[in-house]
Amino acid sequence: MKWWGWGSEKKEYGLKKNKKLLSYIQDVLGLDLREYPKKTFENITLPDITVSKKIIDELKLLTNASTEKHDRLTHSMGKGYKDLVRIRNGDIRQAPDVVAYPETVEEVEKLLNYAKEKKLKIIPFGGGTSVVGGVETTCPGTICADMKKLDKVMSIDTVSQTAHVQAGILGPDLEEKLTKAGFTLSHFPQSFEYSTLGGWIATRAAGQNSTKYGKIEDMVEALTMHYPGGKISTKTVPASASGSDIKQLLIGSEGLFGIITDAVIRLHPLPEHKHYSGFILKNFDEGITTLREILQNEITPAVARLSDSEETRAMMKIGSSDKGIVNGLMKDAFKFYLKKRGYSGDEVCMLILGFEGPKDKVRFDFETAKKIVRGAYLGTSPGKQWLKNRFELPYLRDDLLDLGILVDTLESATNWSNIPCLYAKTKQSMEDSIKSYGVKGFVQTHISHVYREGASLYYTFVAKEVKGKEIEQWTEIKKAATDTIISNGGTLSHHHGVGKDHAAWIEHEHGKKGVEIIKKLKECFDPDKVLNPGKMGI
Amino acid sequence: MKWWGWGSEKKEYGLKKNKKLLSYIQDVLGLDLREYPKKTFENITLPDITVSKKIIDELKLLTNASTEKHDRLTHSMGKGYKDLVRIRNGDIRQAPDVVAYPETVEEVEKLLNYAKEKKLKIIPFGGGTSVVGGVETTCPGTICADMKKLDKVMSIDTVSQTAHVQAGILGPDLEEKLTKAGFTLSHFPQSFEYSTLGGWIATRAAGQNSTKYGKIEDMVEALTMHYPGGKISTKTVPASASGSDIKQLLIGSEGLFGIITDAVIRLHPLPEHKHYSGFILKNFDEGITTLREILQNEITPAVARLSDSEETRAMMKIGSSDKGIVNGLMKDAFKFYLKKRGYSGDEVCMLILGFEGPKDKVRFDFETAKKIVRGAYLGTSPGKQWLKNRFELPYLRDDLLDLGILVDTLESATNWSNIPCLYAKTKQSMEDSIKSYGVKGFVQTHISHVYREGASLYYTFVAKEVKGKEIEQWTEIKKAATDTIISNGGTLSHHHGVGKDHAAWIEHEHGKKGVEIIKKLKECFDPDKVLNPGKMGI
Repeated sequence: MKWWGWGSEKKEYGLKKNKKLLSYIQDVLGLDLREYPKKTFENITLPDITVSKKIIDELKLLTNASTEKHDRLTHSMGKGYKDLVRIRNGDIRQAPDVVAYPETVEEVEKLLNYAKEKKLKIIPFGGGTSVVGGVETTCPGTICADMKKLDKVMSIDTVSQTAHVQAGILGPDLEEKLTKAGFTLSHFPQSFEYSTLGGWIATRAAGQNSTKYGKIEDMVEALTMHYPGGKISTKTVPASASGSDIKQLLIGSEGLFGIITDAVIRLHPLPEHKHYSGFILKNFDEGITTLREILQNEITPAVARLSDSEETRAMMKIGSSDKGIVNGLMKDAFKFYLKKRGYSGDEVCMLILGFEGPKDKVRFDFETAKKIVRGAYLGTSPGKQWLKNRFELPYLRDDLLDLGILVDTLESATNWSNIPCLYAKTKQSMEDSIKSYGVKGFVQTHISHVYREGASLYYTFVAKEVKGKEIEQWTEIKKAATDTIISNGGTLSHHHGVGKDHAAWIEHEHGKKGVEIIKKLKECFDPDKVLNPGKMGI
Repeated sequence: MKWWGWGSEKKEYGLKKNKKLLSYIQDVLGLDLREYPKKTFENITLPDITVSKKIIDELKLLTNASTEKHDRLTHSMGKGYKDLVRIRNGDIRQAPDVVAYPETVEEVEKLLNYAKEKKLKIIPFGGGTSVVGGVETTCPGTICADMKKLDKVMSIDTVSQTAHVQAGILGPDLEEKLTKAGFTLSHFPQSFEYSTLGGWIATRAAGQNSTKYGKIEDMVEALTMHYPGGKISTKTVPASASGSDIKQLLIGSEGLFGIITDAVIRLHPLPEHKHYSGFILKNFDEGITTLREILQNEITPAVARLSDSEETRAMMKIGSSDKGIVNGLMKDAFKFYLKKRGYSGDEVCMLILGFEGPKDKVRFDFETAKKIVRGAYLGTSPGKQWLKNRFELPYLRDDLLDLGILVDTLESATNWSNIPCLYAKTKQSMEDSIKSYGVKGFVQTHISHVYREGASLYYTFVAKEVKGKEIEQWTEIKKAATDTIISNGGTLSHHHGVGKDHAAWIEHEHGKKGVEIIKKLKECFDPDKVLNPGKMGI
């Protein structure tokens, strides 16, 4: 992973080659398209190591441990907008003293016990792709425990269709091993290529196929978590009535209670057939009703993704390149057709529906859904293109940052009856906040995780950066949005997590008693506060 | 509800009229068919009331409160076999001093605060149908808080298809109110007619339709629980990534942490179509494979119920009466047909599959499932009869007790790869235990809650009572079964709960740390130990 951005050093999005998209962005944001330089690796200075050489030597005896600049730098924070701005500017206030790469569960145990004994801190680190400050180093004396060497698929139960897997495994590696046995987990967050099973579990992540396959908390049948001085394993059973569900406490614990070392996950056979397609709808409201009716009529697409008109417009621009999701969508003939149906170009919304599974079922589900959709069928090409490019957008972010563009995402979820209100108010709050800095920008939204009773709303906000005030500008937009979400019945986060960035709102989400419970649990697992300090407000 | 048995005083099962079933039971258990008398209500003596008149008067000012014998007796324990034996024998060791019937949430609050102040105990009580000692009075100074007057459907959100409901509502009342609005919860435990929403939530209950609609923990979107000195409400959102899932701690808390006063539940539209039918399979193993393949091929029946050969035989006997599930099933022509297919009468198993939902989907799902089933289709009549009589068996239990027959049920769940082993070992352990008392008996089993990765096993054990030693005899069978379940990868309970009867095994289920967590939570909500003492080993 690039230390200053997303993905492999060899790969870039190539925004500069997409003239149409570039001129659209220039137009919408009022940019001069100059490129802002970032610091070179050599020019970055890290804070000094705060632990003694003796400690480093002892750690090296316990496990693989590095104090190299590249390791410390890439483990000092996650991959949110704020992180990238700071890292590009060389603004590294804290970094782990040591990055450990345990290879066995025993090494994880030793590391936890050692940290407890020496009053050090440990930050559990999967892929490090947090966008909410979930893996940020917050104080001296920190060891970052990178779990990526614990990456084995230990067993696959082909009868029960479950697998016992170590938590450090990366998404593509996991899917590759499962595919060989004829299975899939089908958890595809946008971070898929660089995030780990343990990270997904610790943050209650959702993949792009969650509408059918569930969030990670639905996929985990059992797990083991190690804390300083012990471990806890939940029972591998499909369901139980033996008191409180302790597993659901550990899922979402964001490294505060311990390090998740392995889990039993629920698999699916590799889908016999896939059918991904696109529709164009008159407006966002028609789309909301469509998604709700599909789910409430017992049809469960793997992917159900409705973009509002702003996002649809941007997709059309992106689509005019070779990465196009809607190649040719805006051709004159099509525009004419839409107009004839009474659709206005300003309001139309794109819907992607993806069905996967046994061939007959996919056909039945798609045909049923098609009857429900309040819009025009565009065929399979938009679906296929979305599928092909679905992990690309974090690469685009790097190119936007080069041009001095602030870009980030945030998400919530609420019930259907509250979706229109939450959608509009949150969008407005962000637009107002962008304007208050005297710059141009826009907010685009999609619904991409759909339930019978509601859905998540996923916002992308884009603005011209106010140079020198990027973090302040970003903080204001986030605050405006989060305050609005919280006071309008949305959840603090649907799948990004709490981390450092949402910590201020944790009591609004869980109430005083809820926070007291989380604190009691912290005490129960980690009374010495070794683990992931400064996160979740705990 | 009868104080000495199940259901309305006016209704009885009428075993004596079913000569075929009666002679079958006589034969299998070696009975002389004499009827054992039970104590009359007048002859029952309750323990003296232990609280002062002042306290009773003060309680009566706070809420509806009764010290009547009938109230105290019927609230002294649940409806397990052990309870019924004791109540029929007049063996009431503890009873609540007062039974309170709060009508408002404010009265619940006052009651909790008053109990805390006066160092009294409170047992939250829904329908009182626990079969694991979950509502048993265990010490003097106890108030039983019967919640049945908090029974309002407060609102129905027809867009999101959710309802906000008070926890004391009984099953039929809830379904009636939802039906009027065009919806159903579809939670139908065998206790449905006499159990409450709050009781279901407190015990992590499962209904007979759980394969499609989920267990109660899947149906609850949010809930409010009152504890002495406060309350906690979880957020009404479809999903979240804001840390640990506190709701899943409160679900299954069995009245130890507080009193659940209301919940937001996920509804379904009333099914447009229902298709319930029966199949006969060669043996139990073929049935297990059938159910697994149906679920793993993405077909989700509302009801999937596979009886082993012992249960199938008993069903056929029951079926030879007018309550018959398999009327005419054993007619000579059918026997001949089975023989021709190589099915032996001793090994055949009955499978009920029930599909519900939109008409086209029901047809698609049924046709797909039918292709998967490894057995002979019997048409819809067995399915319809099962549906008609599905709440009848607790009434039969009363008639069996009259004849000196021990009868009870227990359940577990495990993954498919472990189902055959857990099935056989648990059955064997109970059969051995029955034999060790020198009496005849039998164990019959069904699978009735099915998941993609596994299923629950539900055992009914029947034996001739050793008079004077019924409780000891029952305790031995339960112990043998539970030890076997726990040491063979099953969960302690799939939907009955922990209560008093399973408390001894709680550490085997959750581990030392798991139990420590539950104790910490108890401390957090109820440090003075006001609530439901002596349950869950906490």
